[in-house]
Amino acid sequence: MRILGIDPGLARVGYGVIETGPPQQMLDCGMIQTLPGRSDGARMVEIARDLRWLVRRWRPELASVEKFFFYRSSTTISVVQARGVVIMTLARLQVPVVEFPPMQVKLALTGSGHAGKEEVLDAVMRELSLDHPPRPDDAADALAVALTGWFQR
Amino acid sequence: MRILGIDPGLARVGYGVIETGPPQQMLDCGMIQTLPGRSDGARMVEIARDLRWLVRRWRPELASVEKFFFYRSSTTISVVQARGVVIMTLARLQVPVVEFPPMQVKLALTGSGHAGKEEVLDAVMRELSLDHPPRPDDAADALAVALTGWFQR
Repeated sequence: MRILGIDPGLARVGYGVIETGPPQQMLDCGMIQTLPGRSDGARMVEIARDLRWLVRRWRPELASVEKFFFYRSSTTISVVQARGVVIMTLARLQVPVVEFPPMQVKLALTGSGHAGKEEVLDAVMRELSLDHPPRPDDAADALAVALTGWFQR
Repeated sequence: MRILGIDPGLARVGYGVIETGPPQQMLDCGMIQTLPGRSDGARMVEIARDLRWLVRRWRPELASVEKFFFYRSSTTISVVQARGVVIMTLARLQVPVVEFPPMQVKLALTGSGHAGKEEVLDAVMRELSLDHPPRPDDAADALAVALTGWFQR
């Protein structure tokens, strides 16, 4: 099964594509990065466009998207809005979506909902037989969410 | 100048279209309503589709969108996500967007940031020479935001 993991944001959207195999393997990972000088609307247009491209390229059967719970600053309002664009774009392309909060991702990968970033990264590398840590961090987070989507099925 | 006012939401998106004249007049108002049984993604797809239709029908030169500041429950997370879809859709259709928090809308229409719903409704009816209150409430709110977009220019 092919799963697209997404770590949403406005400035940076991490993504990772896995094939569950066996063996599980990573097909792609990276980050959609938007330009800070542009309006939120223009940045979200970029995100929708690049995400459409990724879905057409990889044809995932499932998307696994990190979920947020708390919003405080105006920065995170933008992030939640951008997340809406991600969810809508996936729905329009008829990719089924599952959503997981960060604690559930940590729990699924390490057995502890309070694991540190390094432990999660180690688990991602082990599960996908990677020699090097995926870069940037957003891509590693997206792979962790993709794996969680798989483990929870 | 033709202005599209939007009161965003996931279940209900109020809209109102005004022509600033003189004289100022209402061209259209109403509500995009989405089905509660569907996923957030599917509901946001409906919102984007209906909003595209409205923009193509009325060709607004400006969109004025109500802004939020505080998010507490999971319900409002969905609302903020849907608002992101509205902002992105307007950007994609190259409609310039201005945003106003509720207090600024009340202030612009009544002279008080703490005005009640009835006072705002009276101001909308007076400014647009309406004989009857616009229905539903979401449409009246959207017309108030559209007028605020005009007054602030």
